[in-house]
Amino acid sequence: MKTAFDPSQIRALVFDVFGTVVDWRSSIIAQGQALSKAKAVNRELPDVNWPAFADAWRAGYVPAMARATTPLADGSTPWANLDTLNREILDGLLPRFGMESLTEAERAHLNLVWHRLDPWPDSVRGLRLLKARFVISTLSNGHVALLVNMAKHARLPWDCVLSSELARQYKPHPAVYQMAAQLLGLQPPQVLMVAAHPGDLRAASNAGLRTAYVPRPAEHGPNPSGKPPADALPDDHFDIVAADFVELATAWPRTVP
Amino acid sequence: MKTAFDPSQIRALVFDVFGTVVDWRSSIIAQGQALSKAKAVNRELPDVNWPAFADAWRAGYVPAMARATTPLADGSTPWANLDTLNREILDGLLPRFGMESLTEAERAHLNLVWHRLDPWPDSVRGLRLLKARFVISTLSNGHVALLVNMAKHARLPWDCVLSSELARQYKPHPAVYQMAAQLLGLQPPQVLMVAAHPGDLRAASNAGLRTAYVPRPAEHGPNPSGKPPADALPDDHFDIVAADFVELATAWPRTVP
Repeated sequence: MKTAFDPSQIRALVFDVFGTVVDWRSSIIAQGQALSKAKAVNRELPDVNWPAFADAWRAGYVPAMARATTPLADGSTPWANLDTLNREILDGLLPRFGMESLTEAERAHLNLVWHRLDPWPDSVRGLRLLKARFVISTLSNGHVALLVNMAKHARLPWDCVLSSELARQYKPHPAVYQMAAQLLGLQPPQVLMVAAHPGDLRAASNAGLRTAYVPRPAEHGPNPSGKPPADALPDDHFDIVAADFVELATAWPRTVP
Repeated sequence: MKTAFDPSQIRALVFDVFGTVVDWRSSIIAQGQALSKAKAVNRELPDVNWPAFADAWRAGYVPAMARATTPLADGSTPWANLDTLNREILDGLLPRFGMESLTEAERAHLNLVWHRLDPWPDSVRGLRLLKARFVISTLSNGHVALLVNMAKHARLPWDCVLSSELARQYKPHPAVYQMAAQLLGLQPPQVLMVAAHPGDLRAASNAGLRTAYVPRPAEHGPNPSGKPPADALPDDHFDIVAADFVELATAWPRTVP
C-alpha cells in the first residue's frame, strides 16, 4: 500500500521523451516531406505517404525492444540501442514505401531523424519553469547520445540525461526506474515520473516512483474522438494529471492537499 | 602513433570537475569558516585551521579511491561513491581537528560540501561559450547525484553528466574515458578531455581522447612559485593549452594549424 502523495517530497522529475516531450510523428513527417521535396527534382522518390511511414516506423519499436533484450541461450542479456533498432525497422520499411533508391548516406541520415525531433509547443517553457525548482532529467528508452543530440536540437534544458541504456534494459523494466532514483541519490518516492503513456507510469509507480500524467492526445495524429491512449486501463491512478508542462509547473502548489 | 591533432574533429568536451571547474579548496574553507562562526556563539568549536582541514580531506581522496576499487577475493570489484569515501575520510579527521562535538546532522551536512563547491571565475562563462558549439559534459570521479547537485548550485550548464560511477571504476582507469566516448556516440579522437591535472590527461590520451590542459595554479592554495602540478612530467604533451575556459572557447579557431 502506498502512502498518500505529498508533492513537497518531490526532488526530481524524470521525463519520458518520445511522445511526452517531443512530437515524433510531426517531426518525421516534416523531415520526410523535406526529403521528398529535395529529391523531387529528379523524380527519385515516389509519392511517399509520410504519416503512414512514421506510424509504421513507430509500430516496429516495441517488438524490436523486446527482441533486443531477450536473454540469450548463455543467459546473458543482449543489448542494442535505438539507432540499431530504428535502422533495422527502417530497412524493412524502405521496399514497402518504394524508397529503395535512397543511398546509404541518405538512409543513415533519415535514421537519425530520431535525434532531431521537435518539442511540443509547451515543452521548453515548461521544462525551464520546472528546472528552477527541481532536478529535471530524461528517463527514456533513447540512448544517451540520441538524447544529448536531441536536447541540443530542441533546446531542452535537462539537468541530467538518464537512459535505459545505463541499465541495459528498456522501460517498463523496473531496473530502469530504480536506477534513475539511485543515480540521482534519491528515494523512489522523491522522484516524479512524467509521461504521456499510462503503461510507463504504472511501471514507474510499481517501482516506487510518483507519477504525473500529461496526455498528448495528438501523439499518434489528429484524434478528434479524444480517445485515451491504447495502453490506458480503467483503474489507472496518477498522482498528478496536467494538460501540459506549463500547467504542471504553474499548478504545482495547488496539488498540495 | 597518434595522428596530428585536428581541432575540427572535436564534437564533445568532457571536463574533469574537482579543481578544473570548481575551486574545492576555497569553497571548503569558506563553508568551514561559516560553520565556525555559527558555532562561535556557544564556543562549540575550537579554532579550526580550515585550509589545513581542506588539504587533509583532499589528501585522503586518492588512497580512498584505490581501496574502493581494489578487487575482492571473489574477483568482483567493489564500489563506493564519493559521499561514502569523503565521509570515511572526514570521520578520521574530526578528532585531529578537535571537531568531535559536531552532531551527526552537522557531519552529514559538512560531508555534502563537495556538492556545493563554487566554480572558478571563468568557468560558467567559458562553459556557456563552449556549449554553443560543442556537447559539454562532466567526466568526473564525483558520482552523478553529486555532479547534478553541484551543477544546480554553481549553475554549470552541462549538456550531459557523465561520471566514473557509470563505469564503476575511477579515473585514471581507461574504462572511464572509453565509456564517455561510447555513451556520447563518438570515436575517442572526437572527444576532448579538459583538465587541470596532467595525470588525468595522460590517461585520457592513452585511451584515445584528445587533451586540453587548463592549469589551475591556485587549486592547492596560493602558489607564488608558479610550480607546475605535482603530477606533471617533463615530456607531457597536450593538444591544447589554455589559461582558462574563456580562452579555451575564444582562442579555439586559432588552434587550427
